[in-house]
Amino acid sequence: MVYTYLVKQPTDSTSVFKLINTKDGIRQGSLKTRVGTVVTPTFMPDGTRGAVKSLSPQQVADTGVQIVLANTYHLHLSPGEKVIKSLGGLHAFANRPGPILTDSGGFQVFSLAHVNKITEDGVTFRDPVNGDTVFLSPEISMQIQLDLGADMMVAFDDVTALDASGRGRTLEAYERTHRWLDRSIAEFQRLTKHMSADERPLLFGVVQGGLDNDLRKKSLELVQASAVDGIAIGGLSVGESRQELYDMLRFLAPFYDSDRPHFLLGVGDPKDMRIGIENGIDMFDCVLPTRNARHGSAWITGDKKIQLTNAKFAKDTKVIDPKCDCYTCREGFSLGFLRHQFKVGEPLAGSLVSVHNIRYLQRLCEEYRNLK
Amino acid sequence: MVYTYLVKQPTDSTSVFKLINTKDGIRQGSLKTRVGTVVTPTFMPDGTRGAVKSLSPQQVADTGVQIVLANTYHLHLSPGEKVIKSLGGLHAFANRPGPILTDSGGFQVFSLAHVNKITEDGVTFRDPVNGDTVFLSPEISMQIQLDLGADMMVAFDDVTALDASGRGRTLEAYERTHRWLDRSIAEFQRLTKHMSADERPLLFGVVQGGLDNDLRKKSLELVQASAVDGIAIGGLSVGESRQELYDMLRFLAPFYDSDRPHFLLGVGDPKDMRIGIENGIDMFDCVLPTRNARHGSAWITGDKKIQLTNAKFAKDTKVIDPKCDCYTCREGFSLGFLRHQFKVGEPLAGSLVSVHNIRYLQRLCEEYRNLK
Repeated sequence: MVYTYLVKQPTDSTSVFKLINTKDGIRQGSLKTRVGTVVTPTFMPDGTRGAVKSLSPQQVADTGVQIVLANTYHLHLSPGEKVIKSLGGLHAFANRPGPILTDSGGFQVFSLAHVNKITEDGVTFRDPVNGDTVFLSPEISMQIQLDLGADMMVAFDDVTALDASGRGRTLEAYERTHRWLDRSIAEFQRLTKHMSADERPLLFGVVQGGLDNDLRKKSLELVQASAVDGIAIGGLSVGESRQELYDMLRFLAPFYDSDRPHFLLGVGDPKDMRIGIENGIDMFDCVLPTRNARHGSAWITGDKKIQLTNAKFAKDTKVIDPKCDCYTCREGFSLGFLRHQFKVGEPLAGSLVSVHNIRYLQRLCEEYRNLK
Repeated sequence: MVYTYLVKQPTDSTSVFKLINTKDGIRQGSLKTRVGTVVTPTFMPDGTRGAVKSLSPQQVADTGVQIVLANTYHLHLSPGEKVIKSLGGLHAFANRPGPILTDSGGFQVFSLAHVNKITEDGVTFRDPVNGDTVFLSPEISMQIQLDLGADMMVAFDDVTALDASGRGRTLEAYERTHRWLDRSIAEFQRLTKHMSADERPLLFGVVQGGLDNDLRKKSLELVQASAVDGIAIGGLSVGESRQELYDMLRFLAPFYDSDRPHFLLGVGDPKDMRIGIENGIDMFDCVLPTRNARHGSAWITGDKKIQLTNAKFAKDTKVIDPKCDCYTCREGFSLGFLRHQFKVGEPLAGSLVSVHNIRYLQRLCEEYRNLK
């Protein structure tokens, strides 16, 4: 039996998102958070441990980033949400006045924790650094995210892989995700009831259901019927083929209601983002631009990749992409310089290419935002 | 027998340095290079491999740095001066329009090369990466530095340690340094004779002589009698005690002629810099501010150090130094944030503290430059 839920009416929070224009399935919108309004579609780099890896907040802001994502799992383990709260919350901690979104921790428990046990109550795992037993549940995830001081939060979900080993757990994970959504919402409402509409962070519910169209459609309907401010699409980009990802994005497109933002979790490849945007997605996050950058991989016009560590670039005076307006390209850092910096292991190379890759995804979003 | 040299008249290049003011042994001056004039005393961070470690040129410039030092040894080994020349020289390569000084490579051969053999001709050592045999001589060092496109160059010297093992070689190194100075100057003049005064880089000769006052005084006299634009004090901060370093700086002070800049090689501790400046030194370089930063050590007012990895800072909302005007302190990055970033191994911590430490040394120099 597929678990069915009490359908709740959305709160009046739906007004946080305004659709400015739509064109061929592409949405141009604006999302109001308690620390400022952002325009969509938009890409959010991952500031996993409170900072986008190897970049100063100034460098991040210079790329046109509007929202930074911080990881609940990592920050809960170190330094802990109580420490961050005592340091003034994530905005003061990470020196970022603009919007911050925290994820639920669910994906990291699934992908990073070495030993984990999922029960109806929550997930138990070991801290990979000190071996301590850690427990996360929908209620604890909400408490952590509020303590961190997030402007946008994500309900705690049960994530499962989409490779051969994980697909058998799709239904179980879908059902638990929805029971946990109810608990996430209840705890969120309990913890935020004293807050005014202007003070309250936004809450995203997560759609699961693996590659099963019926489950996904039902999951989307359930999340959209819940008291959440935004719709997150989870459990994709976790081992399925590209075609399967695209098919699911296209399948879901007609079923979105249009009054809330749609956030595709963990996707940051330009080609994938285009399919997402062309199928109603408004927000993306991923470690890809910075992780690729640290390994010497840069995107260039046409969503192609070049590998900057390649010896053929040793004497190349050209920049990564002459059409790019990022600091790295604008200031004229040559392929030869970048190749050398990677070769000798200088961290500046990863920073400069991170700036480029993040800017690449911002420009991709701007392209869609500027479509008439 | 102490080798004596043909005393050559200095060139008319001595006009590159102008003494603006002197006070109690402190010199306030200006140094004209082919790409701009700098004011002294000044501290030059080490951009060992073409870039100050983990900082963008913009971040370096924002600290008030006027000159960046690049290492001949490292750049010769990778990517090679011919590659850098084909990429437009160090200025284009490292995206730094302002003055660049290259060292001679002598110090790195002495301190880094695993196998080295010193003969009258030059030094043979193994490339630590690929094991190739590499040969450096006064002539080759001049050729490399010119190919790199340095605005200020240093004559190739024979460096010896000042710990117990090295002191026996003081006289030999002193004598060879002066024979090599003659060869460095001859090669420099041969290679630059087609250049106008405005195009020509400046050449610094190196004073050696270990802790032997007589040798040091004689060495200084010989360098000052040579056709060099600046006087570099080498072979200090290489194993001697702090008191021995200070005694030597004080001993040398009365013997400088005043029409050329005095560059103390490899010294960047604030206390040491003060003794240097108060004894006629105009320029300093060192990896200390960036290396210390990467290990979590920051200077604070009073030339004290704090260790940012210390657990006592975990919940500390204060900045490194409330009196500091660097990006890191000005923007309010807390001790708690920095401590966390170090603890979890995030490279941003080293970058932010590098900015602070470099700015600390710039402020120290500014303090002396502003003395009335």
